[in-house]
Amino acid sequence: MTVMTAAEIEDYLDDVFPHRQGTIEAVDHLRATMSLAIEDEHLRPGASVSGPSMMGLADVCLYVAILAEIGPEAMAVTSSLNCHFLRRARGDRDLIANARILKLGRRLAVGEVQLFSTGDDDPVALVTATYVLPDRDD
Amino acid sequence: MTVMTAAEIEDYLDDVFPHRQGTIEAVDHLRATMSLAIEDEHLRPGASVSGPSMMGLADVCLYVAILAEIGPEAMAVTSSLNCHFLRRARGDRDLIANARILKLGRRLAVGEVQLFSTGDDDPVALVTATYVLPDRDD
Amino acid sequence: MTVMTAAEIEDYLDDVFPHRQGTIEAVDHLRATMSLAIEDEHLRPGASVSGPSMMGLADVCLYVAILAEIGPEAMAVTSSLNCHFLRRARGDRDLIANARILKLGRRLAVGEVQLFSTGDDDPVALVTATYVLPDRDD
Amino acid sequence: MTVMTAAEIEDYLDDVFPHRQGTIEAVDHLRATMSLAIEDEHLRPGASVSGPSMMGLADVCLYVAILAEIGPEAMAVTSSLNCHFLRRARGDRDLIANARILKLGRRLAVGEVQLFSTGDDDPVALVTATYVLPDRDD
Repeated sequence: MTVMTAAEIEDYLDDVFPHRQGTIEAVDHLRATMSLAIEDEHLRPGASVSGPSMMGLADVCLYVAILAEIGPEAMAVTSSLNCHFLRRARGDRDLIANARILKLGRRLAVGEVQLFSTGDDDPVALVTATYVLPDRDD
Repeated sequence: MTVMTAAEIEDYLDDVFPHRQGTIEAVDHLRATMSLAIEDEHLRPGASVSGPSMMGLADVCLYVAILAEIGPEAMAVTSSLNCHFLRRARGDRDLIANARILKLGRRLAVGEVQLFSTGDDDPVALVTATYVLPDRDD
Repeated sequence: MTVMTAAEIEDYLDDVFPHRQGTIEAVDHLRATMSLAIEDEHLRPGASVSGPSMMGLADVCLYVAILAEIGPEAMAVTSSLNCHFLRRARGDRDLIANARILKLGRRLAVGEVQLFSTGDDDPVALVTATYVLPDRDD
Repeated sequence: MTVMTAAEIEDYLDDVFPHRQGTIEAVDHLRATMSLAIEDEHLRPGASVSGPSMMGLADVCLYVAILAEIGPEAMAVTSSLNCHFLRRARGDRDLIANARILKLGRRLAVGEVQLFSTGDDDPVALVTATYVLPDRDD
């Protein structure tokens, strides 16, 4: 259903994007889930997960969902990203990102990511983002 | 004109937010400028500065501009952040953030940040963000 | 479960906001659904529903969901609104808005609205927005 | 410096987009200014200009700035729009939009619009938006 598996994407990212954050938990048609083990570098004052750590995980997670659909020869580039910070993300919990592609067009993809602290039901942040897709034959 | 100088804010951040990125270059009434020396950890594929590095610098830079106005006892919290990525940010140049507060209300502050690669006139990204301010007497 | 019914909100809006667009279809805990019968004034070139018509319906629909929770003496004010236009919204179909409140804090509410053309499964637009709430005792 | 004048764009819009709002005041390289005479239909409770009226004028104003650069055979489509509402926009004043294109790429344009109530120096809203451009030879 996807053109790359989670393991294939992880290998690809190790190669081209070694400094990325987070671990791929699952990919499925138009969806991806990632986790981030929180370290000191991810914290802001108040022992909370910092905004850039959340936005970074969300961005990679949508990128993974797009890769799973269109494959690695094609480089999607983030065009815009919007994040609503909803609740404090606890620094002593892993961060989970659930990404969903809302539109996969010829030139643009748009997706949404809900971020959670492990064990909580209410999202800590909601990200929406737009990606420019490379020229493809389709 | 501001209640804290750049040096006072730098000291304060060293204390409460040691993992932040970037150096304060200047603060002025409703404005702040910061720079980020780009390291490998800030790069994404293509030797470009990553989106989270840009959004992180913008977020801290607006936070600094707010601190300069309202002082350190008060903790502003990012409520939402929107980023348009306009051009590739070169990985071999420093990143510069110019932040400007558009509204400093009783409960919310809104600001805009233009990001540049050193030496270029055209911005690489435009960030707008909203901050919830603590309860203050004013 | 809500402090106002759909009919009570409709009456209230007729009184204070007579130029609003759209009809309330349902309100439930943290949710509201509205519809807009598309007229010529809502169209842009290409016989599509215009962006402002979509953003306007989404904004009112979230406002209705907040009213249903906090009641009419309290005036929520839109602080920011972000819209992703995903697909052409057909001018010969009604527009439907499904709003959901993601956070109802003491001072801010954040919500998301999916917009559809009647009869289609894929959303035509996704709106997220932040509202400043009045001072309340809670 | 632009491929269409303000008068040519006004004529073109009268033809293809008769229900648009606002009057073109000026176009220049990568810039456009429009005004909106506020009528009852533009108001929300509190005798203020409604959010959709502001977002609608901003959207048309950026569209005009793009038209002035790329000409009428090409239809730009709004991909996303973000609005920060900064201050109450008085219902007894005209609304002014100053639009500026930040990026005019091959496939995407990004712009920013500051909105003012006539006679005030502080903006009432800040809009940023992304447009998908048609296929062009360039």
